[in-house]
Amino acid sequence: MIIDCHGHYTTAPAELQRFRDAQIAALKSPDRAATIPVPRISDDQLRESLEKAQLKLQRERGTDLTIFSPRASAMAHHIGNETTSLTWSHLCNDLIHRVCGLYPDNFVGVCQLPQSPGVPPANSAAELERCVRQLGFIGCNLNPDPSGGLWNSPPLTDRHWYPLYEKMVELDVPAMVHVSASCNPNFHTTGAHYLNADTTAFMQFLTSDLFKDFPTLRFIIPHGGGAVPFHWGRYRGLAQDLKRPPLEELLLRNVFFDTCVYHLPGIELLFKVIPIENILFGSEMVGAVRGIDPRTGHYYDDTRRYVDALKLGADVQQRIYSGNARRVFPRLDQQLRTAGR
Amino acid sequence: MIIDCHGHYTTAPAELQRFRDAQIAALKSPDRAATIPVPRISDDQLRESLEKAQLKLQRERGTDLTIFSPRASAMAHHIGNETTSLTWSHLCNDLIHRVCGLYPDNFVGVCQLPQSPGVPPANSAAELERCVRQLGFIGCNLNPDPSGGLWNSPPLTDRHWYPLYEKMVELDVPAMVHVSASCNPNFHTTGAHYLNADTTAFMQFLTSDLFKDFPTLRFIIPHGGGAVPFHWGRYRGLAQDLKRPPLEELLLRNVFFDTCVYHLPGIELLFKVIPIENILFGSEMVGAVRGIDPRTGHYYDDTRRYVDALKLGADVQQRIYSGNARRVFPRLDQQLRTAGR
Repeated sequence: MIIDCHGHYTTAPAELQRFRDAQIAALKSPDRAATIPVPRISDDQLRESLEKAQLKLQRERGTDLTIFSPRASAMAHHIGNETTSLTWSHLCNDLIHRVCGLYPDNFVGVCQLPQSPGVPPANSAAELERCVRQLGFIGCNLNPDPSGGLWNSPPLTDRHWYPLYEKMVELDVPAMVHVSASCNPNFHTTGAHYLNADTTAFMQFLTSDLFKDFPTLRFIIPHGGGAVPFHWGRYRGLAQDLKRPPLEELLLRNVFFDTCVYHLPGIELLFKVIPIENILFGSEMVGAVRGIDPRTGHYYDDTRRYVDALKLGADVQQRIYSGNARRVFPRLDQQLRTAGR
Repeated sequence: MIIDCHGHYTTAPAELQRFRDAQIAALKSPDRAATIPVPRISDDQLRESLEKAQLKLQRERGTDLTIFSPRASAMAHHIGNETTSLTWSHLCNDLIHRVCGLYPDNFVGVCQLPQSPGVPPANSAAELERCVRQLGFIGCNLNPDPSGGLWNSPPLTDRHWYPLYEKMVELDVPAMVHVSASCNPNFHTTGAHYLNADTTAFMQFLTSDLFKDFPTLRFIIPHGGGAVPFHWGRYRGLAQDLKRPPLEELLLRNVFFDTCVYHLPGIELLFKVIPIENILFGSEMVGAVRGIDPRTGHYYDDTRRYVDALKLGADVQQRIYSGNARRVFPRLDQQLRTAGR
């Protein structure tokens, strides 16, 4: 079985975006917000949006199950206030839940959180709990910068975030560290802000004792860990200069990387420096890069081809493609066992 | 000859920092600022600060000439105002000039600019011109985020920066894109902010027509280009999705990468994806990482070992170690020719 740990619902029917546009327009006259009709999206529309995109690509690429969350760039926690984010998160998460209900073999849910600048992360715990306990979700996407590129929240290692971590630990679910759209003109969303956030979060973890306080807390750093594997020597050296424990001991029981790196040399590097048990197969499809690489004739984001090209042994492949994901997402493992998979 | 394109004077005598401390203390009572005595540093003190550090390492590692600039993290353009930065830049650049005078075979100068948040980059042109025309410097370090981690200046591709670029083109000097200390608790200076700035700048260049406006403008992106080579497929794919020209055509005549990547797998990747003519040897010594890697028994930042381990042909080595630097820094080439080197 091949589990893709990183997929977003980037192809949702246009009704969803129309609701969002209306919600944003209503920010200027808050009394109108409550009157925006909930979008009516039929099961057939959902099927159509997936059959020609994610499901088609799953079949073509031979992957089985996508850990599926709302479109990351559209979370846009910086827009509006806490109510705006709560309404929008509910709607997006409920849509993911319907997708998972229609295709239970193909998708399992990860939720967007109703974060909002200046609002305590504790306030996201209820939506996380709803998604996990009522909708069967197995994790969440956590935005380390709800401001969208102003970076004015405390670091992820600050006690500010602890109440949410307590809920994650209680529910035994991991978070993918994932920013959303950048409203800072310096940062291109998918070409800079995403990767910067990955790099930033890793260094925050490196300089803190977060995982002493939460030994079972788990984070996936997407996009192959941003700049981290390329600079693995720098991080090993920084940890040493700062008198921190070796990285294996300091954070590799808690921090994992996906394989969303869109060329073979990058994937080769990832597997050279990051321990096998810390790598989860992922593609970010349908996502940041949608084209076909003229040098290979295949989609840039068809990351299975790069991993396969490494000719890892069967045991290692099994861990990368499913074993590690089942370990990092225990609720997924439980669901799969119940389904006899 | 081996030219190290990225070295900072991180070992300057303590008098320099004492001046800076006094300067910062005086920000609260501006009338005191003018009375701070200029630090008295003797030639012997300069020699001592270098003999046991940069010069010792040059000898041990078999490198010849370091392109040398003031300590990057200490530029701290976010502190004080334009006058603060101007005084501090003058002092730091003059010290680099004295170092180059004492050891003309070992060091050549690159200047810090007197940038300050909200101040037009045009105002840095005079100090750049002074350093190049009067002190014999060959380039500058340009900080894309003088706020120190708030990222509130326009992108490097905005016309805001053009007057400085005009001066760079007139003087035929390149800039290394280099941020300074982060005052944003989210960003560790050397472990996140530096690499994020590298990644950010590259994506700004990718999405702009800056090099149509300035076909001879040249930037070095340090630290191996941040996350860029690791995600080369992502950048090729993003350029394609955005209907931009291929990267070679779009920016590789103007953008170069150093080899400040502190482990062999990272250097291997860099050389697999970035064209040879775009890589300049650099070590960032004495810099971000100062320890010895217990796995190799050598300094993490002894990047020559990694490059040598690639067993490049003599021609390629010559380009990486000196030819490319002489091409990107024409004033260096001129100086070396005059000296018969």
